[in-house]
Amino acid sequence: MPQPAVVVLDVNETLSDLSPLEGAFSDVGLSAADVPRWFTAVLRDGFALSTAGAAPRFGAVAEGVLRTLLPAPEGPGHEEAVHHVLDAVAALPPHPDVAEGVRALRAAGHRLLTLSNGPASTAERLLAEAGVGELVEATLSVEDVGPWKPAPATYRYAAERAGVPPSELVLVAVHPWDTDGAQRAGASGAWVDRAGRRWPAHLRAPDARVTGLPELPEALAALRGHRG
Amino acid sequence: MPQPAVVVLDVNETLSDLSPLEGAFSDVGLSAADVPRWFTAVLRDGFALSTAGAAPRFGAVAEGVLRTLLPAPEGPGHEEAVHHVLDAVAALPPHPDVAEGVRALRAAGHRLLTLSNGPASTAERLLAEAGVGELVEATLSVEDVGPWKPAPATYRYAAERAGVPPSELVLVAVHPWDTDGAQRAGASGAWVDRAGRRWPAHLRAPDARVTGLPELPEALAALRGHRG
Repeated sequence: MPQPAVVVLDVNETLSDLSPLEGAFSDVGLSAADVPRWFTAVLRDGFALSTAGAAPRFGAVAEGVLRTLLPAPEGPGHEEAVHHVLDAVAALPPHPDVAEGVRALRAAGHRLLTLSNGPASTAERLLAEAGVGELVEATLSVEDVGPWKPAPATYRYAAERAGVPPSELVLVAVHPWDTDGAQRAGASGAWVDRAGRRWPAHLRAPDARVTGLPELPEALAALRGHRG
Repeated sequence: MPQPAVVVLDVNETLSDLSPLEGAFSDVGLSAADVPRWFTAVLRDGFALSTAGAAPRFGAVAEGVLRTLLPAPEGPGHEEAVHHVLDAVAALPPHPDVAEGVRALRAAGHRLLTLSNGPASTAERLLAEAGVGELVEATLSVEDVGPWKPAPATYRYAAERAGVPPSELVLVAVHPWDTDGAQRAGASGAWVDRAGRRWPAHLRAPDARVTGLPELPEALAALRGHRG
């Protein structure tokens, strides 16, 4: 039998479902297409600040980018619009497959942690809503490191907190840059592709691919069987 | 009189006009809105790789992201579509204000360099097309450093190549993350806002703001007058 791993779950978009933001964006005069536009720009600026040596806060970047997309700040309703969208961000639900996926991973003997570019409280809320909070041993944030994932120090921090070498970690994420970064830091990466996307050739191919979290135990058994 | 500065011009979008890409994107079944979507994702992944300690090549990331946006690679015309768009990227023209702006900066006594996250050849071509190639003393690329701007090492490299301390550099860019990064590295930053955008509050405010390159000599005189 392959050894169980320490599974580190990404949080934003991996655990949380961003689709309810489409309604909130529409409410304030933006479009559904502005949701990925906003989120990609948040990552761009968070990574830029990390590259520059800063320690950006997710909430500040998320709000800062949102304000540049909204109509003029002098106009009526600008502050209300900002708060309406940020309230929706704070209330995003977990994906429907989170509860089953987390339970299946624990049933297979894997240890579970989360590691987010946002605050740990977001992961705690999402896991509680999915009814699996007690199955995850730690909700970690890059706020305790400085730069955002995919900085190598963030994955090493998760390994240290778990008390294992990075090679025992499997980072699970919907974002190719996250599994790529984990693999560069000596961990394994499992890509969750719920939407049938294409892998970007400029990033390292993931060690495992699944279309939802419940497929992870089988994928990890294959991955760690190959390795062991 | 304020002392002349060493002016370091960003290249992609600061010197080059991306608007002709809208036609090329439409030709291959994408939309005008996909141009900023593509470019933002290119920056996101280039910064992610830089954060992860890699040394990404601009062309590889630009092509890799483009392929994820296009219809299935197995379909007819996929390769032709990729090459059609990349040919358009390679042929982007300089903004109409580049020639006047570069001449005005030199006339005011400033030294001029470029520093790009892409290859130096792009800057050389754009400056030649604007007829001002001989006014710029060096076209630098982060390819000789490793990570992309806004890594501090990239601005320090430009300062070293110019033979001045970073405090003598003024980085000129349309991208807020670039002037922010230059300022964090000890240089000054001048933001070129041709489109009347809003400054993102999560980044350091630029030392100078202009709506086009020809305004730079006056803005730099004010900036360096204040400092001197």
